[in-house]
Amino acid sequence: MSVKVGVVGASGFAGIEIVRLVLRHPRFELVAATSSELSGRSLSSAYPALDGWTDLAFVPHDDESIDECDVVFLAVPHTAALASAPSLVERGCAVIDLSADFRLNDPQVYEAWYKVPHTRPDLLEKRAFGLPELFRADLEALAGVRATGAGVLVGCAGCYPTATSLAAAPALRAGLGAGGIVVVDAISGVSGAGRKATDKTHFCFAHEGASAYGVGNHRHIPEIEQILGIEGRLVFTPHLAPYSRGLLSTVTFEAGPRDVDQESLEAIYSDFYEGSRFVRFLGGSVQPSTASVTGTNAAQVSAVYDPRTNTIIATCAIDNIGKGAAGQAVQCANIVCGLPEAAGLELVSTPV
Amino acid sequence: MSVKVGVVGASGFAGIEIVRLVLRHPRFELVAATSSELSGRSLSSAYPALDGWTDLAFVPHDDESIDECDVVFLAVPHTAALASAPSLVERGCAVIDLSADFRLNDPQVYEAWYKVPHTRPDLLEKRAFGLPELFRADLEALAGVRATGAGVLVGCAGCYPTATSLAAAPALRAGLGAGGIVVVDAISGVSGAGRKATDKTHFCFAHEGASAYGVGNHRHIPEIEQILGIEGRLVFTPHLAPYSRGLLSTVTFEAGPRDVDQESLEAIYSDFYEGSRFVRFLGGSVQPSTASVTGTNAAQVSAVYDPRTNTIIATCAIDNIGKGAAGQAVQCANIVCGLPEAAGLELVSTPV
Amino acid sequence: MSVKVGVVGASGFAGIEIVRLVLRHPRFELVAATSSELSGRSLSSAYPALDGWTDLAFVPHDDESIDECDVVFLAVPHTAALASAPSLVERGCAVIDLSADFRLNDPQVYEAWYKVPHTRPDLLEKRAFGLPELFRADLEALAGVRATGAGVLVGCAGCYPTATSLAAAPALRAGLGAGGIVVVDAISGVSGAGRKATDKTHFCFAHEGASAYGVGNHRHIPEIEQILGIEGRLVFTPHLAPYSRGLLSTVTFEAGPRDVDQESLEAIYSDFYEGSRFVRFLGGSVQPSTASVTGTNAAQVSAVYDPRTNTIIATCAIDNIGKGAAGQAVQCANIVCGLPEAAGLELVSTPV
Amino acid sequence: MSVKVGVVGASGFAGIEIVRLVLRHPRFELVAATSSELSGRSLSSAYPALDGWTDLAFVPHDDESIDECDVVFLAVPHTAALASAPSLVERGCAVIDLSADFRLNDPQVYEAWYKVPHTRPDLLEKRAFGLPELFRADLEALAGVRATGAGVLVGCAGCYPTATSLAAAPALRAGLGAGGIVVVDAISGVSGAGRKATDKTHFCFAHEGASAYGVGNHRHIPEIEQILGIEGRLVFTPHLAPYSRGLLSTVTFEAGPRDVDQESLEAIYSDFYEGSRFVRFLGGSVQPSTASVTGTNAAQVSAVYDPRTNTIIATCAIDNIGKGAAGQAVQCANIVCGLPEAAGLELVSTPV
Repeated sequence: MSVKVGVVGASGFAGIEIVRLVLRHPRFELVAATSSELSGRSLSSAYPALDGWTDLAFVPHDDESIDECDVVFLAVPHTAALASAPSLVERGCAVIDLSADFRLNDPQVYEAWYKVPHTRPDLLEKRAFGLPELFRADLEALAGVRATGAGVLVGCAGCYPTATSLAAAPALRAGLGAGGIVVVDAISGVSGAGRKATDKTHFCFAHEGASAYGVGNHRHIPEIEQILGIEGRLVFTPHLAPYSRGLLSTVTFEAGPRDVDQESLEAIYSDFYEGSRFVRFLGGSVQPSTASVTGTNAAQVSAVYDPRTNTIIATCAIDNIGKGAAGQAVQCANIVCGLPEAAGLELVSTPV
Repeated sequence: MSVKVGVVGASGFAGIEIVRLVLRHPRFELVAATSSELSGRSLSSAYPALDGWTDLAFVPHDDESIDECDVVFLAVPHTAALASAPSLVERGCAVIDLSADFRLNDPQVYEAWYKVPHTRPDLLEKRAFGLPELFRADLEALAGVRATGAGVLVGCAGCYPTATSLAAAPALRAGLGAGGIVVVDAISGVSGAGRKATDKTHFCFAHEGASAYGVGNHRHIPEIEQILGIEGRLVFTPHLAPYSRGLLSTVTFEAGPRDVDQESLEAIYSDFYEGSRFVRFLGGSVQPSTASVTGTNAAQVSAVYDPRTNTIIATCAIDNIGKGAAGQAVQCANIVCGLPEAAGLELVSTPV
Repeated sequence: MSVKVGVVGASGFAGIEIVRLVLRHPRFELVAATSSELSGRSLSSAYPALDGWTDLAFVPHDDESIDECDVVFLAVPHTAALASAPSLVERGCAVIDLSADFRLNDPQVYEAWYKVPHTRPDLLEKRAFGLPELFRADLEALAGVRATGAGVLVGCAGCYPTATSLAAAPALRAGLGAGGIVVVDAISGVSGAGRKATDKTHFCFAHEGASAYGVGNHRHIPEIEQILGIEGRLVFTPHLAPYSRGLLSTVTFEAGPRDVDQESLEAIYSDFYEGSRFVRFLGGSVQPSTASVTGTNAAQVSAVYDPRTNTIIATCAIDNIGKGAAGQAVQCANIVCGLPEAAGLELVSTPV
Repeated sequence: MSVKVGVVGASGFAGIEIVRLVLRHPRFELVAATSSELSGRSLSSAYPALDGWTDLAFVPHDDESIDECDVVFLAVPHTAALASAPSLVERGCAVIDLSADFRLNDPQVYEAWYKVPHTRPDLLEKRAFGLPELFRADLEALAGVRATGAGVLVGCAGCYPTATSLAAAPALRAGLGAGGIVVVDAISGVSGAGRKATDKTHFCFAHEGASAYGVGNHRHIPEIEQILGIEGRLVFTPHLAPYSRGLLSTVTFEAGPRDVDQESLEAIYSDFYEGSRFVRFLGGSVQPSTASVTGTNAAQVSAVYDPRTNTIIATCAIDNIGKGAAGQAVQCANIVCGLPEAAGLELVSTPV
């Protein structure tokens, strides 16, 4: 029997990619795709890649078809999930939230960075953080709750936090960080700036341009610090470069206190990702490229020990809309629904 | 039981895309991928998108693993298929040839355009032309032959001929061409120039450049004329533009002898492609975009009647590596093997 | 003594490129750059490429600094030039209009295609058409008028008409057209869609996509027909491809009534463009590329005679913002001001 | 009287860009452009952007036309400059070397990183380092030598060192570095990989891909450490992203020992670059974009103090082929020849 699925905020890039994945998912059935902006318009007229795959039209956020759903993905701006998640959970839905509302453990940190009150700290305590490679036990615990018929909530990791943490966590969890600053320079494709047509996303302004933005104040900072346990030590500079999908995070930190060399570093990463369905560790001599993961839920990771400076440089490439958003959301949904983790995500990126 | 598949010339763009499709095909099993250039190297090191999906390495063209194959795709330059196809067919293979060697019905036309003798006109007579939407009966006839255990040969259509014919055939077959010149201007992504690193494919030379090439002498001319039955009337100008995959063909010709208007034109196209699994007719007011079909076997078609000039302007967008090469080859293989036409090709392009 | 210059509509792509050219022009001095949208903002904050080159800020369209100008460029939508050009001409300005308002000789044709009345047919009669390579005498006649201190008006050619006419005019003026349809397929970069941020200009929608638009009804049709004298015979299909600046026009028509071959065709083009400062004829074996003319006022032209079909295929590459808009406007301004035609336009495109 | 100029290695991207700049230089006259690969071919056939600007053809490296030159640019691989610079200097040329051969002060460092002996440490002592904003006095001293008619040698900075040093030097020279690691993540366009057609520069492999390379071992490391005086403390990770020209360097380091805040940091940078002809300091709230400097010798710099982590994040955007290579070489040539620093470099980048 199929699992009925709704996507709230389906007209944005993450939302429509969830639609794409659900349409080919062996167990999920798409019954509702909401959009305030495109309500009434067919999905395939707004996104012609879907032509032939669905006859659904966007419905308003409060459409009653959402009420039929077992699983609801919230691909909405922050505060909107705070508003809608509680009632969905209460009526027994598995809610997979892609917004920032249920990512940060500490509501006060949320309030400091997002400048709005967190109205449901109680829900926050019960949610799992949606980054399966690092918090699998929490998600599996939710699957147990879900099996009883109760509603559950997943607060999915953001795109930069996902790539950065997949790059850095194996070394940091192994105690290979000296305790100083962790420098993260990450490069996102333009889709990271969202569907809204703005100067920033105009082809002629984005084209040929690499630039940094949000230096020192990007809202993914507290999330990354939380995941990696490096509060107050992260220097994060996101960049945009002229491609559509993909995100590369380059993480640099001093090694220590214990000794490390390239071989032992690689062993740690290999062990960490052994058996991982989506994360591939490439070693230290091959570097990940965003081009290799486009359209999929895959991540590629590399780690290099630089003896000259006693630093570790770890990199991770993901599709910011895939593993960085929609793919990871479906992966989380699979886990909490007790389905195979990779259901609907068995996608091979185009070789060129 | 799985069908054993080999790809000869697997390191090129069409070949490696066939590999990608076969790896996720429900009935095909990849047992051999040959390359003279990359022999010995793992597929995933040359094409990191395949990392995690196969442990195969490229083998030489004459590797004995080819002998186990039920289906062999030839993604090789012209003349190479002439050399290798006959023995494969004779030992009972289904041979799906992507080269030009078995496309042209008349060996003399082949010799005139390719400047080499056609050594196997006998095989030519028995092959089917690989463009299922226009020559389905021939392919299904081969499926009958194949069911007896005999070897069969498909000469797949080229990329420009596929897009051009899907755009123009419904009107021309309905007798809506006045008999004069048929002007085709087509735009291909850079992958159309092949895997070889050359000045033409150098990022810095291809970038920001739109240009025509092969004006008046491109070898797809006789193939398009054959498919559409417009011998001596085709003016074909291919162009390159700076994107990787995708091909748009714009076909213009005077209408006549019988009357046509937009409504009747659309009715003809709608009928023609009704029930088609891969070709979508968008009408006259929405134009196809290559971005909507990337990574898939889909084609999108539009047709406009211009009463000012009494002309028809039909357009078709495909992925030149997908429907224009690898996807169509797998589609043909499915048909001649008696499998569902869309097996392994149920792919939704990324919405952005 | 410098010539004081104003740019009305300076925040659009054509307008700001005029600014760029005027800032380095040996005789022009920029005194006013208007924008309703960006009024009050510095030019260099909106367009950081200008940082260090000007301290001007955008002013409203009716700013009095326009009153000081000897030359005013109107980079405005159609009807806006109809509104503002007359008074400027009357007070003695050289008005260089980039809108469509003064391009079409016949006000009724204007009204049929633009669906608004042409309120100043009298001015239309006195204006020159701004495409110097084809209408030089008219522009030089205006220079004579201008030398008397009187105001003058130039209606500059559009981007598609410029490239298309430079490609086709030498052959058609030499009587090498058979009189049937003239098929023009042209490819523009995304800057052709203008500065406004829309779905069409969003990086993620424009990227990887080639598509046609405006099939059969683009407003440049009557302009091209007028320039080339082919009323009712033009089939024009514009396309967008994923690059920023550049336009390639491919023109195809049957040759006749008199005989032609490749050699005689090339002789006609060579003669036509001999001594041309901006148009280079490349012959028949080298094709123009938009990449070679980016950022300049150059045009590259090729012409091929196809004996198989007795057709001529002529191509022209320009920068749609350069020779297709701002560059040509400055070129026209130079001519009517009695300056060297190439003043401020001596720009070499980047080799890569 | 014009200064006769030769470009050795003119067919590479840096070399041909020097050609472009020299062709429009008010005092330089191009008399020789050498290439072993393209010898005999016209410059404009290899680089059609030059069509109409020069009739020169590439000549062999040892062509006698080099003997007439007052200024010779060496755009050659390392070791080739070691071989050819000495005799040119000895016969009185101003030699502007873009290779790595005369960049590193210490020949032993050169030998350690380049694995070849440095055969002319004597010349090294007399050369100036070509990064005018940081080593102007040395270049002006050479101008004095040059004024006596003697040959001189400039070892121009590399592309990554230029952008990185322009970003970091003001703060580090002001004593604002705490003495720990300096993390540099830089993004280059594909032109940085050179003219050679390889897998890495193939459009279809470079497209859509961001990736790191040369982690921990890029040869620009000792050069950056030398310029900034941070020996043994640099962690440098270069990246490629899919655009043609442009380089963005993001430099992160802990601040100290003395206190700093955003205001004082900006004051230091503003003072440092006050009056600079090519470097613009944008403050801390506007970030440089490579798109704004393409085709020019400009650099844009930003600096942010992050009080959370007590770090400084400085960024710089240049055109890697412009300020990162050819533009800077011409700037250095101007200075040593006693010409205005900006001669031939007064170029405004295209606004879009």
